[in-house]
Amino acid sequence: MVLTDVLSTHFALNSTNTTFQGWPGLIRKYAKYLPVSDQTPVVTLHEGNTPLIPVPAISDRVGRDVKVYVKYDGLNPTGSFKDRGMTMAISKAKEAGATTVICASTGNTSAAAAAYAKRGGLRAFVLIPDGKIALGKLGQALIYGAEVIAIDGNFDKALELVRQMADQYPITLVNSINPYRIEGQKTAAFEVIEALGEAPDWLCIPVGNAGNITAYWTGFRQYQEAGKSQKLPRMMGFQAAGSAPIVTGKMVEHPETVATAIRIGNPANWTRAIAVQTESGGAFNSVTDEEIMNAYRILAGEEGVFCEPASAASVAGLLKLSDQVPTGATIVCVLTGNGLKDPDAAIKGANQHFHQGIAPDPASIAKIMGF
Amino acid sequence: MVLTDVLSTHFALNSTNTTFQGWPGLIRKYAKYLPVSDQTPVVTLHEGNTPLIPVPAISDRVGRDVKVYVKYDGLNPTGSFKDRGMTMAISKAKEAGATTVICASTGNTSAAAAAYAKRGGLRAFVLIPDGKIALGKLGQALIYGAEVIAIDGNFDKALELVRQMADQYPITLVNSINPYRIEGQKTAAFEVIEALGEAPDWLCIPVGNAGNITAYWTGFRQYQEAGKSQKLPRMMGFQAAGSAPIVTGKMVEHPETVATAIRIGNPANWTRAIAVQTESGGAFNSVTDEEIMNAYRILAGEEGVFCEPASAASVAGLLKLSDQVPTGATIVCVLTGNGLKDPDAAIKGANQHFHQGIAPDPASIAKIMGF
Repeated sequence: MVLTDVLSTHFALNSTNTTFQGWPGLIRKYAKYLPVSDQTPVVTLHEGNTPLIPVPAISDRVGRDVKVYVKYDGLNPTGSFKDRGMTMAISKAKEAGATTVICASTGNTSAAAAAYAKRGGLRAFVLIPDGKIALGKLGQALIYGAEVIAIDGNFDKALELVRQMADQYPITLVNSINPYRIEGQKTAAFEVIEALGEAPDWLCIPVGNAGNITAYWTGFRQYQEAGKSQKLPRMMGFQAAGSAPIVTGKMVEHPETVATAIRIGNPANWTRAIAVQTESGGAFNSVTDEEIMNAYRILAGEEGVFCEPASAASVAGLLKLSDQVPTGATIVCVLTGNGLKDPDAAIKGANQHFHQGIAPDPASIAKIMGF
Repeated sequence: MVLTDVLSTHFALNSTNTTFQGWPGLIRKYAKYLPVSDQTPVVTLHEGNTPLIPVPAISDRVGRDVKVYVKYDGLNPTGSFKDRGMTMAISKAKEAGATTVICASTGNTSAAAAAYAKRGGLRAFVLIPDGKIALGKLGQALIYGAEVIAIDGNFDKALELVRQMADQYPITLVNSINPYRIEGQKTAAFEVIEALGEAPDWLCIPVGNAGNITAYWTGFRQYQEAGKSQKLPRMMGFQAAGSAPIVTGKMVEHPETVATAIRIGNPANWTRAIAVQTESGGAFNSVTDEEIMNAYRILAGEEGVFCEPASAASVAGLLKLSDQVPTGATIVCVLTGNGLKDPDAAIKGANQHFHQGIAPDPASIAKIMGF
């Protein structure tokens, strides 16, 4: 059985003999670049294939004929780039015979893990610190059928415990140390090159655990080696100022930022991220919460693109470094998560044009509207 | 200037001469099937191109080799199918010289209208009944920069007023009576045919204002006439039991359902919907809130697909009519909105596997996990 036949085996007795021609998901699309074989049971929600969107209002701010695009990975099935890694992690877990996966996460990882695990017929457990996490944050993981276990202890303890569980029991760990996650995530770089016909000059990306910057770099290198692009981008990583261990060179014990998805004081892929910086001639810089929220509002209010606050760090960083951008450069900013993931940030972050108690007649409304 | 050149004019002085090869959005992709010309300024968020996802757990419930897919239109840029219509409505408004658009909406329409209007450099106004709408529901429209006007009066009054405003002032109405909306929405049918290589046997779809069922039917017919498919689907529309005017044949004064996106007592496209039923040999049926929420949970918890409650009406309807499905048929259920739009429904709807106060040691956790 070859990989491209896996889908049709879902419908083995397909009497009308329909052949699926839609987007098949990352693994089937990029099988030759991934550690899969024709024995790998593909667990997919047809993730990837997300749009690369020009952002002219941001291009204009940078000026000098610079062309800026956003890779809007919030349009993955569970609303974040984590789906790219999770289709690989869960498919490989299933291939290895696993029936149960576990992660310590309060956000996008838990939602992706739960969705792919349940789709693959596996059980999904999410370990969190007790009493610290609002139920609302876990609503998505719960609706996908995750079982949440709240432990007496902090998040570091939860991370230590999921590693121990995976060592001592037949349970697969799908946190970011799972090596297949980066393999899946690198496909975003493939899609960027396919859309532009070449790698961009700069790749601007939010950095938390530094898995995604590592993944993109792996993807850019692999596609260049395959002759799909001529050049490699400079990898420009951005951390939140209150959570910038790679920028400052030291662990942050109590990271604080509005960009919760990158609020990580001790990145799992720190060493690899430094290697990416060196190899690509890139840089790590920090952006303040104010700069992040400013970029977040520009993206939504001028470009029509609604992302998580953490995602906006890539655009905030670009705007901060705009003097350094080469004239005429092509730049891609990665937007890692959907703005709908964090409705509170939207309510708090919006310039609220809200007119109440208006008389129900056209003239009164016209006055408000400036006619 | 031809349509396909419009994108590059965003970056007119493109010194590296990059040619964009990514998904260009609906209007550029399907220009020959749409009422646009090379003079139309295309306002796009690169909407459409959403995945068609096989749902084996639902296929299994129907049985008899029936193949069921969901068209997951919640992965459009603002999280619902409304983007398909709004790229057309706003582009045509801009072509006509409009600077201001208005709609009466508390949900997906207001978000899409705001996003596309602002992206196109237009002002967006949203009229709502005062005191009835939680601010959280409007967070998305507000972050996109909509100006919200809350009037003394109910939703019907708001609808009447936006029509009057569009008649009396230079303001474009982008509610569902805007004819370009259906033109944009029909492209979802094109994508379904492209993915399957043929039209499905049944198209199951939630019905509120009945604009989307009309749009899909228009698209299926147009692609058949163009030789892209041999057959036409039966159009199976589903309304919520507490809001089922087309099923019962009479207006519902106070529609009630958990499926808020289809809580409409007097559909704008009622007559056209009846024509679609007749022409396609289709049917309208109702599903209860309980059936809707059951389908919602199956989709998330077994298929890994998280949609709005209203979207699940299509799957609930299919499961209700499963005895009527021809053996071996191919069926597409339309999922109109992203589950992240309604986080409260997820929290209330989930089977909450939530274990609290667990001791932080592997043995205690293993016990919970059943090892």
